[in-house]
Amino acid sequence: MQYFYLIDLAGTFVFAISGASAAADRKFDVFGALVLGLVTAVGGGTLRDVLIGSTPVGWMLDLNYLLVIIAGVITSLLFKRFISRLHKTIFLFDTIGIGLFTILGLQKTLSLGLSPIIAVMMGTVSAVFGGVIRDVLANEVPLIFRKEIYATACLFGGTIYLLLSQAIANDLFAALFSIVCVIAIRVLAVLKHWSLTIK
Amino acid sequence: MQYFYLIDLAGTFVFAISGASAAADRKFDVFGALVLGLVTAVGGGTLRDVLIGSTPVGWMLDLNYLLVIIAGVITSLLFKRFISRLHKTIFLFDTIGIGLFTILGLQKTLSLGLSPIIAVMMGTVSAVFGGVIRDVLANEVPLIFRKEIYATACLFGGTIYLLLSQAIANDLFAALFSIVCVIAIRVLAVLKHWSLTIK
Amino acid sequence: MQYFYLIDLAGTFVFAISGASAAADRKFDVFGALVLGLVTAVGGGTLRDVLIGSTPVGWMLDLNYLLVIIAGVITSLLFKRFISRLHKTIFLFDTIGIGLFTILGLQKTLSLGLSPIIAVMMGTVSAVFGGVIRDVLANEVPLIFRKEIYATACLFGGTIYLLLSQAIANDLFAALFSIVCVIAIRVLAVLKHWSLTIK
Repeated sequence: MQYFYLIDLAGTFVFAISGASAAADRKFDVFGALVLGLVTAVGGGTLRDVLIGSTPVGWMLDLNYLLVIIAGVITSLLFKRFISRLHKTIFLFDTIGIGLFTILGLQKTLSLGLSPIIAVMMGTVSAVFGGVIRDVLANEVPLIFRKEIYATACLFGGTIYLLLSQAIANDLFAALFSIVCVIAIRVLAVLKHWSLTIK
Repeated sequence: MQYFYLIDLAGTFVFAISGASAAADRKFDVFGALVLGLVTAVGGGTLRDVLIGSTPVGWMLDLNYLLVIIAGVITSLLFKRFISRLHKTIFLFDTIGIGLFTILGLQKTLSLGLSPIIAVMMGTVSAVFGGVIRDVLANEVPLIFRKEIYATACLFGGTIYLLLSQAIANDLFAALFSIVCVIAIRVLAVLKHWSLTIK
Repeated sequence: MQYFYLIDLAGTFVFAISGASAAADRKFDVFGALVLGLVTAVGGGTLRDVLIGSTPVGWMLDLNYLLVIIAGVITSLLFKRFISRLHKTIFLFDTIGIGLFTILGLQKTLSLGLSPIIAVMMGTVSAVFGGVIRDVLANEVPLIFRKEIYATACLFGGTIYLLLSQAIANDLFAALFSIVCVIAIRVLAVLKHWSLTIK
């Protein structure tokens, strides 16, 4: 599980970079970049913790998250051009990130005794609502309401995890397999232009 | 009180329909419709529960709410035209809904030992803040800040309930009477174009 | 500490006035003015309380805050012209307010056993996030993401307080000195047009 912790921090770092970049694009100042970086990185998990009643929220109890976020925001502001050339790497870590955040959020919700359906929802909230809060603060319509089947990949991956971990009683394998599913769906969705448009 | 539960679910269903319709109007995808439907239906009660410290929030503990919301969103997406012809029925259930949500939210707040004034406020939050959060997520100025005396009807109905339930020691009658007051004020406000404009 | 309580209420009053004025500028109705006044005045502290798990949130437990806010909103709506001539007085109390809110929020966070870094953050959230939520509800880009080093003054003042209260073991002096620092930075920032623009 030590690996999961490191991937969690790496995902947090990449989310913070993307939040801070969004702030720079909108001509926010350094404080705005910090807030958007923080919110993008931990906003989803924060909303989940508040809704399920697990407070103080998670990142307040392990300062590594805050350090990684501040590092991400500084990296984003100092190496803007360099980062814009890394967009495939960022996409990769962002996608691994949402996969992992989904499973970790799901597990935390289950551990409080809530139902599996709520756990899948809260896993998805952990993964995608940081971006929603970022867009709301930047006064824009949240991207995920219109594009890609980003959230659907999380809902699907969470369901796979639930079924698998029941069936095979191997949490680690179930987690890895469902994270791979999330990544595969997201990559395929981007490549094939899948969407869930309302007709 | 079994009746109240059924009306509560019916109100939730109608709120989910109205949230999903708003999403379709804005060209959101199916996921966006689900989020707006959910937020419109249970956003107000969720905010109340978070503020008064009653977590996990209510709808996580009774999956019927979630089922009713999903049914509402699907209904909204499949029968768009049919629903647009039912606008008077929808207005009716929406209005009964805010009346009932006000009283239920007020009772829950009182049951935690908070003061009656806070309880009236939290009853109103339960009834109207789902719509506020929906509008914020859709990147629009919340409708209730400008139109109808929607929220005022809830504040008034909540106050009536408090006074009556003290005076007559009959909770059921007090609840019914104050819900009827909310409905009457709302209907009159729409018919007579009442408003609380700042001069 | 009785003085602090009175200044806290005075700050709350001024914040409520500024929220209600913002509502009037946007042609909201009386209910909208109440919501914006309330949110501007206690939104930051409410967010802090929800994140650190101190619920019911603070203003629900002491109705004086609510009374002061309602008084502020009414004052704002009745004496619009008079208030617009008092903008220097309002600026002064607003600035004292954010200084005090920072220290009070910081102390409350520390008292729950959270780390000093989180406490400085939560102090700043108490002081500035009421304005952020006000701007989000009014469908505008939050002012503090673009202007003045408002939040930075709070982060700085909070840090000073932490260091001083450790060094001299005199909480009252540390609080007063750090509030004066927040005021000085804010006033200087406005006079000298300091900013933290991203290049």
